Amino acid sequence: MITAGTNSRIKRLVQLNQKAKIRRQEDVFVAEGVRMFLEAPLSKIREVYVSESFRGGDLCAQKLESTGYEVVEDSLFKKISDTCTPQGILCVTGQFHYRQEQLLRKKNPLLLLLENIQDPGNLGTMFRTAEAAGADGIIMSRDTVDVYNPKVIRSTMGSIFRMPFFYAQDLRETAAFLRRSGVRVYAAHLGGKRFYTEAAYLEGAAFLIGNEGNGLLEETVRAADQILRIPMEGEVESLNAAVSAAVLLYEASRQRRQTGNGAKGK
Amino acid sequence: MITAGTNSRIKRLVQLNQKAKIRRQEDVFVAEGVRMFLEAPLSKIREVYVSESFRGGDLCAQKLESTGYEVVEDSLFKKISDTCTPQGILCVTGQFHYRQEQLLRKKNPLLLLLENIQDPGNLGTMFRTAEAAGADGIIMSRDTVDVYNPKVIRSTMGSIFRMPFFYAQDLRETAAFLRRSGVRVYAAHLGGKRFYTEAAYLEGAAFLIGNEGNGLLEETVRAADQILRIPMEGEVESLNAAVSAAVLLYEASRQRRQTGNGAKGK
Repeated sequence: MITAGTNSRIKRLVQLNQKAKIRRQEDVFVAEGVRMFLEAPLSKIREVYVSESFRGGDLCAQKLESTGYEVVEDSLFKKISDTCTPQGILCVTGQFHYRQEQLLRKKNPLLLLLENIQDPGNLGTMFRTAEAAGADGIIMSRDTVDVYNPKVIRSTMGSIFRMPFFYAQDLRETAAFLRRSGVRVYAAHLGGKRFYTEAAYLEGAAFLIGNEGNGLLEETVRAADQILRIPMEGEVESLNAAVSAAVLLYEASRQRRQTGNGAKGK
Repeated sequence: MITAGTNSRIKRLVQLNQKAKIRRQEDVFVAEGVRMFLEAPLSKIREVYVSESFRGGDLCAQKLESTGYEVVEDSLFKKISDTCTPQGILCVTGQFHYRQEQLLRKKNPLLLLLENIQDPGNLGTMFRTAEAAGADGIIMSRDTVDVYNPKVIRSTMGSIFRMPFFYAQDLRETAAFLRRSGVRVYAAHLGGKRFYTEAAYLEGAAFLIGNEGNGLLEETVRAADQILRIPMEGEVESLNAAVSAAVLLYEASRQRRQTGNGAKGK
């Protein structure tokens, strides 16, 4: 059992929670909580830590037998946890390295292209929603918040383990590449002339979503095939970024379900 | 200028940010930031505080002339602010007291019924999305987070000033009342047999959305006319509550726009 606060492994775990640079150097991230532990692919789990008083049920016990684990004193576990009320289990997990082709494997892919999203909760929610709506991948601009930030991981509710993604060197070049590959790129923008419900998303489609405060950069909007607007009544000036993504993805999902194109919802 | 940290008004402002009970007793809440100040109805603003170094532009200056204001030392302003980087302006605003009838004024109202929503960001986002989608009101169960919590207020992005709402003594009774009034009540629930895209929302419609972790109570589901499911692919078990609300409200908005029923998006 790890008991001393000066234990170098404790210090390292705290750093892994706090610093994207350290996570990148070690090529890992921290996934915390029972659900995340259970959903993490066995092949990706590098280390598991449980608190002294952790009781996780049969499924956990079974998986812990395969992974092995280290017990940490309760008060120390609080230090390495990113939450106020830790569930008492976390795992150090290998980062994912998807290649662009992996996001384009399916015939008519449905993609999210995110520019400079800053709120961890928003980014995580977009992963969760994208998986639910049947999307095939998420491509992020380099200035988007680190996907391995513990708050992002938590709000993905496990989708981080299943939704392919990568950071694009240049999101506009990626958009151009997608267009050449037959994927239509749509920019969600207040200046759009057409409503998002007036386009058909039955073939490959990618939605560009911009930063929470400023929306998409003008040059990114120009990189799209078409500019779409989500109609807003009242005096609302914009929607939350994760809400915009949800409305667009579920409209695509609705159209695809109606025509029998794309996977069926469970 | 207010300079002493012991100033009783400073103490009171801190309490107004922190305690629902104090807000209720005084029948006010704190709305912070330039945007909130500009969008707050003049008739509702009771007091305005600006930091020593606040520079707000012409619109602010103009409105400040009508409201009057008190200057607060910069370091003290940080204390009364609920954000890490305060914009330097906040106003104490009267609470709203809508009556049920006010939410049912329009012919085919579109409503949200929220049960035990706990995340302030989710609740605020639902206000913002509801206004954008053309909803007529939000009815909350008594155990929903306080709508005047500063984090809720901030995430409404001003919709708090425009979207009618109230806390129901008993949400199930309210659902029954709505049904008697000709509003169809739909429960968003994983157990629903029909997809949400298979119902028509052209007449009065109310969407029941449940708590983030547990969804709707079974007895609340039974209070609905119909149980609807938002299809989910992959291994996603549920959607974020604000995302569910957005998907449902924008489907209603899409249908209404298509048939020319309800208001047009701007």
